[in-house]
Amino acid sequence: MKIALAQINYHIGNFESNETKILNAINKAKNEQADLIVFAELAVSGYPPRDFLEFDDFINKCYYSISRIAKECVGIAAIIGSPTRNPEQKGKDLFNSAFFVSEGKIKSIHHKTLLPNYDIFDEYRYFEPNSVFEVIGFKGKKLAITICEDLWNIGDDLLYRSNPMDELMKHQPDVMINIAASPFDYNAEERRKRILLQNIEKYKLPLIYVNHVGAQTELLFDGGSMAINSSGQISKELNYFEEDFGIIDLGEIEKIKTSIKTEKPSKISLIHDALVMGINNYFGKLGFTKAILGLSGGIDSALTLALAAKALGSENVRAILLPSQFSSDHSIKDAEDLAKNLGVPYDIIPIEEPYKSFEKTLKPLFEGTEFNIAEENIQARTRGLILMALSNKFGYILLNTSNKSESAVGYGTLYGDMNGGLSVLGDVYKMEVFEMSRYINRDEEIIPWNTITKPPSAELRPNQKDSDSLPDYEILDEILFQYIEKRKGPNELIQMGFAADVVHRILKLVNTNEYKRYQTPPMLRVSPKAFGMGRRMPIVARYLT
Amino acid sequence: MKIALAQINYHIGNFESNETKILNAINKAKNEQADLIVFAELAVSGYPPRDFLEFDDFINKCYYSISRIAKECVGIAAIIGSPTRNPEQKGKDLFNSAFFVSEGKIKSIHHKTLLPNYDIFDEYRYFEPNSVFEVIGFKGKKLAITICEDLWNIGDDLLYRSNPMDELMKHQPDVMINIAASPFDYNAEERRKRILLQNIEKYKLPLIYVNHVGAQTELLFDGGSMAINSSGQISKELNYFEEDFGIIDLGEIEKIKTSIKTEKPSKISLIHDALVMGINNYFGKLGFTKAILGLSGGIDSALTLALAAKALGSENVRAILLPSQFSSDHSIKDAEDLAKNLGVPYDIIPIEEPYKSFEKTLKPLFEGTEFNIAEENIQARTRGLILMALSNKFGYILLNTSNKSESAVGYGTLYGDMNGGLSVLGDVYKMEVFEMSRYINRDEEIIPWNTITKPPSAELRPNQKDSDSLPDYEILDEILFQYIEKRKGPNELIQMGFAADVVHRILKLVNTNEYKRYQTPPMLRVSPKAFGMGRRMPIVARYLT
Repeated sequence: MKIALAQINYHIGNFESNETKILNAINKAKNEQADLIVFAELAVSGYPPRDFLEFDDFINKCYYSISRIAKECVGIAAIIGSPTRNPEQKGKDLFNSAFFVSEGKIKSIHHKTLLPNYDIFDEYRYFEPNSVFEVIGFKGKKLAITICEDLWNIGDDLLYRSNPMDELMKHQPDVMINIAASPFDYNAEERRKRILLQNIEKYKLPLIYVNHVGAQTELLFDGGSMAINSSGQISKELNYFEEDFGIIDLGEIEKIKTSIKTEKPSKISLIHDALVMGINNYFGKLGFTKAILGLSGGIDSALTLALAAKALGSENVRAILLPSQFSSDHSIKDAEDLAKNLGVPYDIIPIEEPYKSFEKTLKPLFEGTEFNIAEENIQARTRGLILMALSNKFGYILLNTSNKSESAVGYGTLYGDMNGGLSVLGDVYKMEVFEMSRYINRDEEIIPWNTITKPPSAELRPNQKDSDSLPDYEILDEILFQYIEKRKGPNELIQMGFAADVVHRILKLVNTNEYKRYQTPPMLRVSPKAFGMGRRMPIVARYLT
Repeated sequence: MKIALAQINYHIGNFESNETKILNAINKAKNEQADLIVFAELAVSGYPPRDFLEFDDFINKCYYSISRIAKECVGIAAIIGSPTRNPEQKGKDLFNSAFFVSEGKIKSIHHKTLLPNYDIFDEYRYFEPNSVFEVIGFKGKKLAITICEDLWNIGDDLLYRSNPMDELMKHQPDVMINIAASPFDYNAEERRKRILLQNIEKYKLPLIYVNHVGAQTELLFDGGSMAINSSGQISKELNYFEEDFGIIDLGEIEKIKTSIKTEKPSKISLIHDALVMGINNYFGKLGFTKAILGLSGGIDSALTLALAAKALGSENVRAILLPSQFSSDHSIKDAEDLAKNLGVPYDIIPIEEPYKSFEKTLKPLFEGTEFNIAEENIQARTRGLILMALSNKFGYILLNTSNKSESAVGYGTLYGDMNGGLSVLGDVYKMEVFEMSRYINRDEEIIPWNTITKPPSAELRPNQKDSDSLPDYEILDEILFQYIEKRKGPNELIQMGFAADVVHRILKLVNTNEYKRYQTPPMLRVSPKAFGMGRRMPIVARYLT
């Protein structure tokens, strides 16, 4: 049996585009004499459709798509993900389902059993879990269909009380087919392969795995669809971070003795590729082509510009230098050097004039007060205002350049440098920003080395340095990682050897700045625990503050 | 048996404050010879603790609180909500539980069975559902404990396949006790009473119901704890929107023949009281006392100011008038009249100077372009910047004054008039803004009638009116309500009689402005479907756009 794997970049709610891509893949698979083609979870709607699932109209459109696609499945069968309605009075209104279509008709529907409802997942918000387990008889084989999480309840820490494959095994299937929407993080590929291999070891069956690829706002899907034979050898692995298509023969793959070799990419190169895809898809799916950003001469905006130029093309990115009286000469030079290295057009707009006009306007009310955070923020917000004015006038999307360390401790100005349609580095710690900048410079100096090596500074007052108000980033990042990614509390952190006063200060900063993160742009998610939809915190709480 | 109902305004993660309030109530109940005191769901932690539940340290603190509270329960028993750990390997790590403590000890723990996971609820993200059903024997009576949602699977549309009370009935309980965290919306009280009465009708038992009161960022809890006898007569009803305490005698309430009479408040007065509590608690729980806002002379900022003055005291609110060349004379006069009526201090800061400096600064890049949305937004952002500068300098929280109609269609400037720590009217449609303003004026003119009767305008260009770019608010609000609250699609709306072009235009505006709402302040939730945590939409989607 020849099975095609269709790894597609879907667009949520864009039924026309999704359907066209699906039909094109079906035609391609037909031409290559495939018996069956497999698409991803919730393929017709895109993933995650979130609360659009609560609209009858949206679900109707899913059904229409499926019925049109089914008509084209003559001479080939297909497995396609879509939401379906729960006909029962009791329970949630929908299932997360896989359609098996063949001979121009819907032959059977299979529902997802294990509904992830943690981190960025909200599936129990919409879907009723499956309780009926049947395999598909097709061309003399029995196919056991599961959907993403259905295979993940394996290993030591079991999140669910049952396993759908245990039920399906009662029907003696010949192959496992898993359709997925499994998002990227820098550990995802390794974890995913381990989980899939654990299933193969347990059930002794070959596995066809088809994932999404592409970005849906902050969520990045890396693809990596694959076919693994019953002895655990990977015989086909589709590309990462791009659409791809592959065909395997179920009989042939069993003969393979060793997994195909793929180079194991570094964590930083994975994050790099994911961010480039994330920027590119955010613009593409919103119908925009051009980005703008403020280039300070610092490392965060430098890296953001390099990534944006890669994602959108240098000609589609515009850099704006916004120097103030506190900007150092090297900042302007470093920024100009970078723009030239990348071939990105740039302008210099000094902010002194509007800044002074605010000073004058506010003088009657500020009389007798000292220069403090208020004046610092006026500078950042003046820059933010100018960038948004250009964005509004010329149709750019403003890219936000804040990193995860800053977002965590609130080291940034709301409505100032925290502005933007998309945060590129919001899930990248400062130490990773340094590492990725060196990675970008691996063959030649693109980001000026001076930008990478000089001490970070916001340049909002004379001789200011980040280290005036924050611990060294080596320590800050490690504490943040343990607190955010690993959910360690203060006592555990102190036991790990971090100084108690530093721990308490940082945890307090993280928690009291939740109000700022509430209003930040969506951040491209590259870690197992990003700010945004995957980390939900109350604002008025008083915990560790 | 005498049972005390303790209706408390908890503070998420503020274990010390919560514990003190709980212990005070226990002492009060002891003094009044109560046998049992009942607290709300997740009382020790506050509700909703959200992802703090993922921290071992946080759960430890819950256990410590419970054990200290248990020690004080001598001569009285108590039922208290708290998260607990799931000792089993399989399933989620926690339960949402009720502790029964008596004689200084924890006697039993009862878990929540039905975990709401829709709208603002995420309980399945954290908790494993209960599967063990036992009643409590206490002073010759059997108490059936359930937690909030456990009683809500009744009536026509059943969200769950089972009912915990059906299981508990097998043990012949004498009374139902439900501890809740049931948030306010303008229909909540009516719906809640209907649901509780349906349970009494079905199970023929008296019911003790204890709810949270107070605001947790955007979520408002209205209290309304009550005791209802087995024939459905409400014999005790605690106050709404404030802490309260009451004692009932289980034997005595059975004798009551008719429910106590309470005046049914109007929808607008409910929303009014909820918003006042919401503002007050947001400031109180964050440790702030003073608010600032921009007063335009329009109705939204006028109503926000009136509510803030009520919530915080006139002396703690500062109004800033920020006129531009496009501001009409009546706007300034109306704004001043309002501030004077309320006794609120105000300042006038014309924005012309900074606006002109931006014009000058941007001239080299804007050369040859027409005045458009970019220049309009510069005005709004200049105002936003000045308000934030005052906020930073003097420690005010800026109140956002946008209403739900504007938020829905994106009629507002990100980083401009969309600024603020809290959105007061973000869940209040424009027509409701008018109605509430008239409600505030019911005894005397507080909000100038001219503010209420003049045509709404953003005053960002000459003679601008909202109606230049939006349909009349009567129609706009009705379409928005049907789309947002009722999830009607375009075809259903057109069938209801709305013009097709208007429907398509509005739905497109709502969906394409998701990116703006992503970055808005938290909005006090007063409707059954508010923007924010209860409505989760993808940004890059292309659905109805």
